[in-house]
Amino acid sequence: MTSIPVALDPPSLVTVEAAGFDALNVTEPRAAVVADPAAWDRHGPGLLARFSELGVPVEVLPVASGEACKTIEEYGRVLGRLASMGFTRDTAVVSLGGGATSDLAGFVAGTFLRGVAFYTLPTTLLGMVDAAVGGKTAVDLPEGKNLAGVFHQPRQAHANLATLATLPGAVFRQGAAELFKHGLLADPALCRAVLKPGFGPADPDLEATVAAGIAVKARAVERDPREAGERAYLNFGHTLAHALEAFTGHALAHGEAVAYGMHYAALLGRSLGLADVTAETRAFLAYQRPGAFGQPRFEDLAVFMGRDKKTDARGWRFVLFEGPQRPALFRVTPEQAAAVWPEFLSDVRALA
Amino acid sequence: MTSIPVALDPPSLVTVEAAGFDALNVTEPRAAVVADPAAWDRHGPGLLARFSELGVPVEVLPVASGEACKTIEEYGRVLGRLASMGFTRDTAVVSLGGGATSDLAGFVAGTFLRGVAFYTLPTTLLGMVDAAVGGKTAVDLPEGKNLAGVFHQPRQAHANLATLATLPGAVFRQGAAELFKHGLLADPALCRAVLKPGFGPADPDLEATVAAGIAVKARAVERDPREAGERAYLNFGHTLAHALEAFTGHALAHGEAVAYGMHYAALLGRSLGLADVTAETRAFLAYQRPGAFGQPRFEDLAVFMGRDKKTDARGWRFVLFEGPQRPALFRVTPEQAAAVWPEFLSDVRALA
Repeated sequence: MTSIPVALDPPSLVTVEAAGFDALNVTEPRAAVVADPAAWDRHGPGLLARFSELGVPVEVLPVASGEACKTIEEYGRVLGRLASMGFTRDTAVVSLGGGATSDLAGFVAGTFLRGVAFYTLPTTLLGMVDAAVGGKTAVDLPEGKNLAGVFHQPRQAHANLATLATLPGAVFRQGAAELFKHGLLADPALCRAVLKPGFGPADPDLEATVAAGIAVKARAVERDPREAGERAYLNFGHTLAHALEAFTGHALAHGEAVAYGMHYAALLGRSLGLADVTAETRAFLAYQRPGAFGQPRFEDLAVFMGRDKKTDARGWRFVLFEGPQRPALFRVTPEQAAAVWPEFLSDVRALA
Repeated sequence: MTSIPVALDPPSLVTVEAAGFDALNVTEPRAAVVADPAAWDRHGPGLLARFSELGVPVEVLPVASGEACKTIEEYGRVLGRLASMGFTRDTAVVSLGGGATSDLAGFVAGTFLRGVAFYTLPTTLLGMVDAAVGGKTAVDLPEGKNLAGVFHQPRQAHANLATLATLPGAVFRQGAAELFKHGLLADPALCRAVLKPGFGPADPDLEATVAAGIAVKARAVERDPREAGERAYLNFGHTLAHALEAFTGHALAHGEAVAYGMHYAALLGRSLGLADVTAETRAFLAYQRPGAFGQPRFEDLAVFMGRDKKTDARGWRFVLFEGPQRPALFRVTPEQAAAVWPEFLSDVRALA
């Protein structure tokens, strides 16, 4: 078992365990588990056994599976169920599922009675490496992704690595995009671990690799809890990623969109005379083998980039690399962003 | 003009002015005014003139009038309009209306893109004295009032006292309940100012009286921004008040429910051997003349008290007085709470 303390106020803790929920420690007298139904089917019995050991009574609130749960309607429905079951301020809201489940459950925890304790049990690699640390919570609007939410730090995020083996390999490879991104940002050994032949749920070094990816995010979040500055580097690849997700109506998974977005940003950085990380981002695309999204015109995606949170009246913000593990924030004009689009599409065709 | 700085991080400012919006100072490049339609009809032109002076372009988003705007549906609709109009992180969300409008607009501001700048322009006495300071925002659920929300401090709350004269006298007297409550908590001169014959929107000392009421709340919020302790004293009268509002389906206004709730809490405190403030709370009821709510059994209200945020698994929390201007928090059993109900109903009948 690996523990990664996150020095925030109040403090947060991440635990990574090869199997089981033994490291989970809920201290509130009552808990509500907001659960992805498929995750609950597989891991509910083990989780209930742990709550029984802790002596904490639990109610289970199943929500729609995956991104479909991140609506204002589902948010209101979960809040209403908590209220009607008489949950009070000393409640623990616990998420069991992927990043989407955690985004919804965290928003519920951050706003029910203006905030109750939150615990998250990610069952996907993406959820472990990205959503479990940092306190970003959100729901989507018809107009775009993650447009409403709060910062609400979990008291504990517990990664039970055995949950990863119960999901398709493609879901694991999607989550590896965030691991790889954290490597590019701060840890070259992490990039090598991800690109090692056969990297997957059965990797003997998985606990160390996942913990290393979480640690990169934990350190960034400690330095910048509200994403006022440096933490924005974690958005490397995400400007195009969010636009691709919106453009495809989420047919493209988040981790796939991020893999494309990282390569696009790498091409953009090189075109502006910055560091060249295109070999790395191309190698990751070859490992992940993301789904296709057609060959849209840049203008068709640009409308979605304009709606991203990482935009203000002065232009698009992109995280680009000044050197290896040296990210920085740049403003990019629509003309600069459009100029590398043909090369990006050509690379995507070559990898297909 | 009176300025009341609120020393929070980031700092908040309250300004009180006999008439107009000249003290309002919005620094963001674009603003969205979430407006009660009646308030907009009366005060929209003056507000637009001020934004024109400031050089800040404005969009107006009318919402349902009063408490009816505080739903998850209206919340989602306002968020969607902000998104579809392309608002970004450097947006000012401005509330124009009473406490309910401010509660909704503040929740929108606190969660849109995980938080943008918030300004509030209360047009009711209740909104000026209560909702404008402290950063509490919320919407209601079918299961109860204010069950979802966040703490999000306004950059500025500006009270234009001329708005008060455009509302019925009963609305002013409802808001006076919070002023009077702040006097009981910390400022006996404020209690005397409210009970002075003829206290109303034309009172020549109104600016000083409103500013004194705001100052009591501002000092409490500074000492306890997240309502972790002392600030809970501001909930004097609110445990029963929220139950009465729910029981009557909000036929009783918040300020009326608080007037009843303060007198009930005063009777409860006296019955437990604490300080006797029943003469003061009875005198305020006589001034306010709140609407009737029938003569329900205690059990019919108790179910709503159990849902209040100020409740946990160990009992009901009531703010009671240990001495004049010496509030403290007490746990009260259902039996103790029920014991003073007949006397409360008898006092209410006598005042009718």
